[in-house]
Amino acid sequence: MAKVLITTVPFGDKNRLPIEQLEAAGVEYLINPLDRKLKEEELAEMISDFDVLIAGTEDITDAVMAKASKLKLISRVGIGLDNVDLLAAERRGIKVSYTPDAPAPAVAELTIGLMLSLLRSTHVSNAQLHRGEWQRHFGRRIPEITIGVIGTGRIGARVLRRLSSFGTPRLLVNDIKPDSTISPYQKLEWVDKNTIYKDADLITLHVPLTAQTKNMIGRQQLMMMKPDAMIINTSRGGIINEAELAEVLETGHLSGAAIDVFDLEPYVGSLSKIERCLLTAHMGSMSIDCRSRMEIEASEEAVRFITGQNLMGLVPRDEYEVQRLWK
Amino acid sequence: MAKVLITTVPFGDKNRLPIEQLEAAGVEYLINPLDRKLKEEELAEMISDFDVLIAGTEDITDAVMAKASKLKLISRVGIGLDNVDLLAAERRGIKVSYTPDAPAPAVAELTIGLMLSLLRSTHVSNAQLHRGEWQRHFGRRIPEITIGVIGTGRIGARVLRRLSSFGTPRLLVNDIKPDSTISPYQKLEWVDKNTIYKDADLITLHVPLTAQTKNMIGRQQLMMMKPDAMIINTSRGGIINEAELAEVLETGHLSGAAIDVFDLEPYVGSLSKIERCLLTAHMGSMSIDCRSRMEIEASEEAVRFITGQNLMGLVPRDEYEVQRLWK
Repeated sequence: MAKVLITTVPFGDKNRLPIEQLEAAGVEYLINPLDRKLKEEELAEMISDFDVLIAGTEDITDAVMAKASKLKLISRVGIGLDNVDLLAAERRGIKVSYTPDAPAPAVAELTIGLMLSLLRSTHVSNAQLHRGEWQRHFGRRIPEITIGVIGTGRIGARVLRRLSSFGTPRLLVNDIKPDSTISPYQKLEWVDKNTIYKDADLITLHVPLTAQTKNMIGRQQLMMMKPDAMIINTSRGGIINEAELAEVLETGHLSGAAIDVFDLEPYVGSLSKIERCLLTAHMGSMSIDCRSRMEIEASEEAVRFITGQNLMGLVPRDEYEVQRLWK
Repeated sequence: MAKVLITTVPFGDKNRLPIEQLEAAGVEYLINPLDRKLKEEELAEMISDFDVLIAGTEDITDAVMAKASKLKLISRVGIGLDNVDLLAAERRGIKVSYTPDAPAPAVAELTIGLMLSLLRSTHVSNAQLHRGEWQRHFGRRIPEITIGVIGTGRIGARVLRRLSSFGTPRLLVNDIKPDSTISPYQKLEWVDKNTIYKDADLITLHVPLTAQTKNMIGRQQLMMMKPDAMIINTSRGGIINEAELAEVLETGHLSGAAIDVFDLEPYVGSLSKIERCLLTAHMGSMSIDCRSRMEIEASEEAVRFITGQNLMGLVPRDEYEVQRLWK
């Protein structure tokens, strides 16, 4: 019988259904015994015996696949594909599926929460009160500011939709292919990224990590922003250059930042020393309902593959084209 | 010429217009030289010479008014009247005005922000990452939970309106006079408070502080709540019994709390030791635009009084009735 390696953890933790699905199909499975994100070598060592990989954000490189002589399907729990070498998988005849819609509502909600914390200095006041300091911070409200949204796909569009009940901020949006059908009830200004850097009071990023977006925002872009502007990254680590963000914040530029995703996770670094930098541990998709949906969809795909049914979550061709062009 | 004492601080800080309004009217004014909330005795000592008081949340008792032989108008910057002895003012012929609408949007936005932080443990993750710990917390999304709103006036209604773009949580609402005209597009269940305590995953309070609401939520009510429920207070300190909330949280009951208002401010107390208790320094109305609007409205009222025009922000009769009934 087919064997499934599950590397993403936690898995089946809040809702056992994905595990039950595998068990009902008679699948033999192993959940990542290290209980943390695997390094490339660790995955390479672990994978040789498995037919299907239910994967997280660990690196699934050509070198890993070289050790995976039985592997026929990578079923990603989530949306990002920056960790999967799609072209190597294609060459080796390994199919890749993902669950692109499942995490979007949870990421969008976390983003709005981070936005409201930054705007009102909630995180700073909380830290102060927990050490016995009392300082009332002035803040700004959503309808009073200009918000820049870079990336208006599944998540960016949902962020815009959730903003709609807060009044009417000025909304600057940017995407590689502007989509005039999103947010038909909101007035959006489609502008280039430099206009967003210069004009927005708050910028939020909802783009995939590709060679094109890697280090998209570094010192130069941050310095273009208003001195009291704010930036949020709930997309992927590496899109904002972390070290340069920390340096810029240390000079006093920008009134705040909220970072949920990091180059290397678990994160250790100098952003931790900056109180107005709100940090969360890659929790965008970590709502119980969305996480369960992601795990269930990825398990269902594994079961479909093992039982010879048509796959329903195959990664579309243009994701391969992005990697062909930019990797 | 009339003399105005401004006790609420900061005042005219982000927007000088309220000060300019007073100056344009030729008014002599003094801004609270202690630069913090005054104690009753301090205000009593300071007030004797002034005709108008532009007031914050400091106690304006009969004893204070006894020293205020010239006082003819109290112009409250904000909505709460728990600090003003309305009946004493009436007896002494002192008019009382307030700015009830100005702070509502800012309080509603802060409340949604606190809600999203609690639901996703943003504040806990931030504290952990700032001391070098990495732990991914599961959270819940707004449409997955039951939200209880106690008090559906200016602020509660705005909280409900802002929730509307997040999907359809179950909404339990309670007020002394249920108003079926609020949120006509949302399905609201009007229930008694005990039903809210028992059934809600998250409770938010938007009631004034009166003898009726003082200590409305103590150990008994908190223990009726689900073990993983959450509670938010952005209304007034004292409505939740702070000491009992801290004790209940220390036993592990409730998954979080967010408290913006305290019995005594600046707050010092045991809630500071509880990481899952999100604390902010009475910042509900502290958005630049709302705070400015409150100060401007209170100054305009002072100028109207001094120049003999009709007052526009007089506190309505039923606020006096509440104090007559409950004080």
